[in-house]
Amino acid sequence: MAASAYTTSSDSASSAKLLFRQLFEKESSTYTYLLADVAHPDRPALLIDPVDKMVDRDISLVEELGLKLIYAMNTHVHADHVTGTGLIKTKLPGVKSIISKASNSKADRLIEAGEKIHFGDLFLEVRATPGHTLGCVTYVTGDGPNQPQPRMAFTGDALLIRGCGRTDFQGGSSHQLYKSVHSQIFTLPKNTLIYPAHDYKGFSVSTVGEEMLYNPRLTKDEETFQNIMENLKLSYPKMIDIAVPANMVCGLQDLSERPVESVSN
Amino acid sequence: MAASAYTTSSDSASSAKLLFRQLFEKESSTYTYLLADVAHPDRPALLIDPVDKMVDRDISLVEELGLKLIYAMNTHVHADHVTGTGLIKTKLPGVKSIISKASNSKADRLIEAGEKIHFGDLFLEVRATPGHTLGCVTYVTGDGPNQPQPRMAFTGDALLIRGCGRTDFQGGSSHQLYKSVHSQIFTLPKNTLIYPAHDYKGFSVSTVGEEMLYNPRLTKDEETFQNIMENLKLSYPKMIDIAVPANMVCGLQDLSERPVESVSN
Repeated sequence: MAASAYTTSSDSASSAKLLFRQLFEKESSTYTYLLADVAHPDRPALLIDPVDKMVDRDISLVEELGLKLIYAMNTHVHADHVTGTGLIKTKLPGVKSIISKASNSKADRLIEAGEKIHFGDLFLEVRATPGHTLGCVTYVTGDGPNQPQPRMAFTGDALLIRGCGRTDFQGGSSHQLYKSVHSQIFTLPKNTLIYPAHDYKGFSVSTVGEEMLYNPRLTKDEETFQNIMENLKLSYPKMIDIAVPANMVCGLQDLSERPVESVSN
Repeated sequence: MAASAYTTSSDSASSAKLLFRQLFEKESSTYTYLLADVAHPDRPALLIDPVDKMVDRDISLVEELGLKLIYAMNTHVHADHVTGTGLIKTKLPGVKSIISKASNSKADRLIEAGEKIHFGDLFLEVRATPGHTLGCVTYVTGDGPNQPQPRMAFTGDALLIRGCGRTDFQGGSSHQLYKSVHSQIFTLPKNTLIYPAHDYKGFSVSTVGEEMLYNPRLTKDEETFQNIMENLKLSYPKMIDIAVPANMVCGLQDLSERPVESVSN
């Protein structure tokens, strides 16, 4: 059964066909994204930013949709939740974890700007978008024949809907974030869909054009932006001391000491 | 700026073009849907199942996207939150509220099965899907040239992702719900996208085909289904005594006694 929530505009039988699902974790308001090439006989799939406690839901869905998960990847080292990439690997051997080389973390594949991540006949491009953390990347669907139209950008915490990630931890830099968004995201076509790692107001998607017009921070000049970011007066992230070290090793730093069951809860 | 999150497969200039946004309210896990015909010069739009406390967010988005909201509509009389339809009407005069005639509620337009709700060159069809309440309807995007493909069904609480609404209040009937889903929703094309009024596990969309295979309740025979529904042992809905009377008059039963500001908070 081809259950496609987002199809490309071509209706020729040989065209690539994207299955796309947006998934939500309420406690940390985190979005996880499932993408698969359901026109390919293997139905290869990837998960972006899975959350440890939602791994059973995500794997069930992958199985029900008849997909073959090949990658479990992160946009960056999260500070507010533990990634599900390591747990997924224990439950579905063969899945490879992906994170940026610049994050200084461990994963099966360490990616850099300009690389392509293929799943079937579809692919994601890697864009370096540091500033929230030093290793943040944005994954963008390919620009080419049979790739999804409009394009989709998975921006992590670099660009949120009408917002952006904080810049006061993990090698963050408001100067770098401003540059990243303006040079790597706002240069995409205006109808590119923005799918962030979080939303706290119930928005699910935006576009490059919308954020260029209405983002209350990134529409400002750089000096004003830096001023905003330096005066947010946010509290210390309550999960950071647990999440960051865990997320630098796919969420499973204690696996040798604890049974898998206790890690997953 | 045409910010389209969901476009039809035709790329001819004269084709209809749907802008679609899914919005979430965390406390009651309610989805609100914004649909607009952005190929029509007026960019007419409608909101399905808006929540009172999120009305300012919804109106801001409508304005930023340059849309003209014409309808604020409900799938049914909700028991878990107060509808935003009345508040929207006070803030955007000219908007018409819609609910089913069978709900015995007040609204500007009372719809029945088979009716079409037009916005620009797009339309929704009304299907009667009682069982969660006696007045539940499902709104389905049109079947015709230049209408969105795949079709989209806004099922309210009749069909949830891997679930369904309870049937023990508001004229509910497990017999009727079973019949509604099987005759009115499972008869749609299998790739029809299911957009429910709620999700409690972080799913955002499903398809008719998926629910026909994996819905843990509605894949059962009717007797088993009725047995499941009669033994859910759910607690009394905490908002029901406030929400239901309010929602029978577009959420504003106290408007004559209280200033608008206090109603909106």
